[in-house]
Amino acid sequence: MAFDAQSLVASRLRTMRPSLVRELLKRATNPDIIPFAGGLPNPKFFPNEHLAAAADAVLRRDSASVLQYAVSEGYPGLREWIVARYKTRFGIEIPLDEIIITSGSQQGLDLIGKVFIDSGDVVAIERPGYQGMIHALSVYQPRFTGVTLNDDGLDLTHLQQVLGNDAPKLLFTCPNYQNPSGITYTAANRDGIAALLRQHNTMLVEDDPYSELGFVNSPPPTFRALLPEQCVALGSFSKIAAPGMRLGWLIAPKSVMERIVIAKQATDFHTSNFAQRVLHQYLVSNPIDDHIALIQKAYATQCGAMVRAIEKYFPPDVKFTRPEGGMFIWMTLPEDADAIAILGDAIDAGVTFLPGPTFYTDGGGRNQIRLSYSQSDEARIEEGIRRLAGVVLKHLDGPAR
Amino acid sequence: MAFDAQSLVASRLRTMRPSLVRELLKRATNPDIIPFAGGLPNPKFFPNEHLAAAADAVLRRDSASVLQYAVSEGYPGLREWIVARYKTRFGIEIPLDEIIITSGSQQGLDLIGKVFIDSGDVVAIERPGYQGMIHALSVYQPRFTGVTLNDDGLDLTHLQQVLGNDAPKLLFTCPNYQNPSGITYTAANRDGIAALLRQHNTMLVEDDPYSELGFVNSPPPTFRALLPEQCVALGSFSKIAAPGMRLGWLIAPKSVMERIVIAKQATDFHTSNFAQRVLHQYLVSNPIDDHIALIQKAYATQCGAMVRAIEKYFPPDVKFTRPEGGMFIWMTLPEDADAIAILGDAIDAGVTFLPGPTFYTDGGGRNQIRLSYSQSDEARIEEGIRRLAGVVLKHLDGPAR
Repeated sequence: MAFDAQSLVASRLRTMRPSLVRELLKRATNPDIIPFAGGLPNPKFFPNEHLAAAADAVLRRDSASVLQYAVSEGYPGLREWIVARYKTRFGIEIPLDEIIITSGSQQGLDLIGKVFIDSGDVVAIERPGYQGMIHALSVYQPRFTGVTLNDDGLDLTHLQQVLGNDAPKLLFTCPNYQNPSGITYTAANRDGIAALLRQHNTMLVEDDPYSELGFVNSPPPTFRALLPEQCVALGSFSKIAAPGMRLGWLIAPKSVMERIVIAKQATDFHTSNFAQRVLHQYLVSNPIDDHIALIQKAYATQCGAMVRAIEKYFPPDVKFTRPEGGMFIWMTLPEDADAIAILGDAIDAGVTFLPGPTFYTDGGGRNQIRLSYSQSDEARIEEGIRRLAGVVLKHLDGPAR
Repeated sequence: MAFDAQSLVASRLRTMRPSLVRELLKRATNPDIIPFAGGLPNPKFFPNEHLAAAADAVLRRDSASVLQYAVSEGYPGLREWIVARYKTRFGIEIPLDEIIITSGSQQGLDLIGKVFIDSGDVVAIERPGYQGMIHALSVYQPRFTGVTLNDDGLDLTHLQQVLGNDAPKLLFTCPNYQNPSGITYTAANRDGIAALLRQHNTMLVEDDPYSELGFVNSPPPTFRALLPEQCVALGSFSKIAAPGMRLGWLIAPKSVMERIVIAKQATDFHTSNFAQRVLHQYLVSNPIDDHIALIQKAYATQCGAMVRAIEKYFPPDVKFTRPEGGMFIWMTLPEDADAIAILGDAIDAGVTFLPGPTFYTDGGGRNQIRLSYSQSDEARIEEGIRRLAGVVLKHLDGPAR
């Protein structure tokens, strides 16, 4: 029998393909291109010297344990730091054994898929929803069902219908400065979601990498405070420290955590102990709140610059969100616009973004785009929006309009 | 409807439980206990000062890229180091795009499961086989079938039967200083395996964390040299640098690598870029061959001490392997011995090991045990074997004999 590697690939991977958008963006290598596509933190704020000092300290003090195999749950000191942070920020007490360190919150999403999703299970997601979440969960072959996202959070009427009709195992939310829309669920909306969930056998997942990045105020508290037994909460050090460390966390009720630890162990034993120990040393030796305040201020300025540039260069029938934190603005173009076609021309004009269809599992978002203001300064942001507006206006003036 | 988190757990995780052995070993916290259980490298050889210098160098020189998101395939410099290493060691040229950096070779096993195994697919494994491999793959619910392991490698007659009767998608091997048996496949055995595989639609997986740890000679070349299009090869930096970094690699033919990169991206975007960059800087700035030679020499000495102690304290009807590298000796006690019962008493007597059943999926290994000599010096090894022999002899003298 002839060997045929493709014939051996599992069904879960046979349907997954490298995305068209990713292929398009591979063309965007010219350094003059202004990057509004990726959700990359501004490297200006990476604490490189403090991390170097931290690495030196832990390696010289305690290399036998820093460099050895470690427990799957993660370094206890780092988990204690997270406990203290939740206490300070939200006034709630998370037991240490309900926290596990993950290789970024992306791995948290993978572990949730692994532990909960049988092929064909219904999973409810925001419409639009984070593309990395869709990608991570697709491996486990769920049936996605979308819940409409409004300016104040999930559409409660729609959520009630979805919970009643589809009985989803999981409901995925990104309640703070949502990716991709930039909106934040109000406190009232969260209360409404929690009240509905209490009547259903559905686990809420809160993916929350951005909540420390509020420009003026902090967002309302984590769903963990409202639904302690019915919530898996994901957090990340990528936006407040550095994504190249690949460190995040997952908080889950005890009964679920036991399964997640088994899954984590089978997956990679544990997250890099070296990275965990260095980050922990950095966090306990430096004024992290001051550092976060710098990032908040810079992103607020950059966001403001993007909002002003959009108001200046785009026509008024183009709608867009005005985020109060995070990294993204969500723009809705007139109905006949085709964001993927626009992206091709935008790259030629020297600016990138992510087109709307990336954030839907059901074909929505054709005329929507996500813009990230995190990586560029005010002047580059204005120039990028000017370039983008030129391309968009040309598309809208085309024969279709 | 009442919320019931357990009812939401996927079938793949419902059958996996924390192992009895792991629970037993949790009792082994007394620092006087001599650890022959874990496959932990000796921390004496962790290059902590050199890693501290490397961390300092890369963070000060290039923090914007060291701490940023990076490509899923892994840092090109580290992959180039691996290319050069395979060229030096085996005289073969691995294309850069056939290598991906993983979070330890354990994650390589998980990615292979994710990409290849549909529930119910047949997977052939060594009898006995590495328990971490069994754990990683079990998540994907294969049907395991064992192939007998002899002193010179896989039993070719048995392998031929298994390939013919069960048509396994994958054949897992650990050809060098095998975990748990310590044996090494001979060159002739490898040729025989390759010849059989060429007639079947089965991918060979080579898990090879130990091949740099030969005491006198290097083992025969990687299966990648014999079956370039039909082999996925896993390697690890855990045994030659430090496991707490969580860095390994996976080599696969192009067609398969495309799927593996998609799976890796969905799983955690990429392995800690920080850890990759620090390790790469260490590897290119230090005489790694000298460092490995130190480890080889120490483990050879420790292995010799364990062999001599076993000869001294155990009766001659106890069989054991005499490895030429790696970290493990495999002991076969008389037929009526019960390794799990012995482990309970051994912990009380101040010594640990892993019992045989951990390494079988079909109930074998009741009278076998794995002993690791990597963590203890010669005196402690002799004392540990003395303690263990006392417990074993008491069990063998019991009413059952």
